[in-house]
Amino acid sequence: MERSLIDSIAAALPAGGSRVVRGVGDDAAVVRSGGALCVTSVDAMVEDVHFRLSGEHSSSPREVGWRALAGALSDLAAMGARAGEAYIALGVSAAVGEKRALELVRGALEVAAETGTVLAGGDVVSAPVLTVCVTVVGWAEEEAELVGRDGARAGDLVGVTGLLGGRPRRPIPRLREGRALAQTGASAMIDISDGLAVDARHLGEGSGVRLEVELEKLPLDEGVPDCEQAATAGEDYELCVCVAHADRARAEDALRAVGGAQITWIGRVLSGSPGVSLRRGGREQLLRGFEHRW
Amino acid sequence: MERSLIDSIAAALPAGGSRVVRGVGDDAAVVRSGGALCVTSVDAMVEDVHFRLSGEHSSSPREVGWRALAGALSDLAAMGARAGEAYIALGVSAAVGEKRALELVRGALEVAAETGTVLAGGDVVSAPVLTVCVTVVGWAEEEAELVGRDGARAGDLVGVTGLLGGRPRRPIPRLREGRALAQTGASAMIDISDGLAVDARHLGEGSGVRLEVELEKLPLDEGVPDCEQAATAGEDYELCVCVAHADRARAEDALRAVGGAQITWIGRVLSGSPGVSLRRGGREQLLRGFEHRW
Repeated sequence: MERSLIDSIAAALPAGGSRVVRGVGDDAAVVRSGGALCVTSVDAMVEDVHFRLSGEHSSSPREVGWRALAGALSDLAAMGARAGEAYIALGVSAAVGEKRALELVRGALEVAAETGTVLAGGDVVSAPVLTVCVTVVGWAEEEAELVGRDGARAGDLVGVTGLLGGRPRRPIPRLREGRALAQTGASAMIDISDGLAVDARHLGEGSGVRLEVELEKLPLDEGVPDCEQAATAGEDYELCVCVAHADRARAEDALRAVGGAQITWIGRVLSGSPGVSLRRGGREQLLRGFEHRW
Repeated sequence: MERSLIDSIAAALPAGGSRVVRGVGDDAAVVRSGGALCVTSVDAMVEDVHFRLSGEHSSSPREVGWRALAGALSDLAAMGARAGEAYIALGVSAAVGEKRALELVRGALEVAAETGTVLAGGDVVSAPVLTVCVTVVGWAEEEAELVGRDGARAGDLVGVTGLLGGRPRRPIPRLREGRALAQTGASAMIDISDGLAVDARHLGEGSGVRLEVELEKLPLDEGVPDCEQAATAGEDYELCVCVAHADRARAEDALRAVGGAQITWIGRVLSGSPGVSLRRGGREQLLRGFEHRW
């Protein structure tokens, strides 16, 4: 349902004001303000849709808060923005109660401290299930510091930060890495929230190019048995980035300079129908995914 | 529940960064960025908590979208900020479906067009009931243009814009009025979302003063039988403002100059225990309310 609803919403929008540099369709919106650029992203998570508080694969409230803020900050990382402020709207059910809702906020505050983000406001309402809506605002000095999904060119290398498939319970958004990559000429970048396969496709579609990814090259996290799982697990919050061949060494150096995660080169950018080709042992594999961000 | 949870959250927050001019506790957060000030507010609305889609007192999805964005923009109006961008996170239930969710967005877009706000992004997720989380970002050039809840002084007049108690289905946020009042020296301002009685109390508490309101002076909307209803109805989205005696004429002129709503002077600011005194026929009345914004 969500994808077509988002398309309908995008179609209903009037043309953006001149202040809006990037609107619907990227990891975050970019708005010009005074001498700075304001980069904003909104992420909602709903109990029993995005997480469970009991039973199999359940998360603690603290982990939910951590992941909610980390996921939103990951969108800023993918733009190359500096983290700024966060705003959290909490829907709290009677079953969850005040104590666990506060634990959720404490989890978010841990990520905030880790990333230099200030929790500056929010809202608390009653709701039938625990609902978290996080808005994050990041900053940049000028447009050239930022990178979207739309600049990949045929011939670029495709890279990914860190390790995939591990579904970390307390992921660290790759803000340093995103900023370093954006500033050393990355042509396009996206964070991996729905799995590399899906997010690389979005990047390809956003840039009008085809990303060819060699699944065997994926950097697997500990305990991940298979590159297909690494390509589809989601919630890695690593970055998938396109870099011109000529900028490869600069990008690697920049990541080292900031003490960032390592980058692994997993494929290349081709012209051809926009999207992604996943290849394994020389043959193309088709994986299906979903997405609902706009 | 919510009030004590908000207090616990506020207590858990580390001291704000130097960029945060106003954080938790006002209508909106204010953050310095480049040469501008970024004013941000978040409002969440949940089906069967804040609105119903069927039965008595039900709202259409379009009205829900209108009120969600208008309510958030009203917080910016109360600060004296210019409207900028809006971000909407929608939780959509199967029962509500895509078509009605899109109607909700269309309602929000009507308010956006009316106020010069650009809908710049958002998120769509599944949820057990229709849930709307609106983040609005407004702008100001300098701090002196903005007004909080904390500047009312003994001797000020207390005024209110427009008419109270009507619970309009399509309220217009008082952005022009808020800006005009802030720029002509209003000492404190708040928007009326929970009813004048409650919001005037918040203003008094925020400023450490006592607002004395004469209920008989309240400007009643058509069909409102009684000033008590006008004081408690909520969702007026009018502004309650404190203005020094010497600035009264300037404030009235400024509202006329922008073609804004009329202001009615309903009381005065006293020193004494922080809060509100509601007076009717010479005696004090006690009304109880609630609030859940932080």
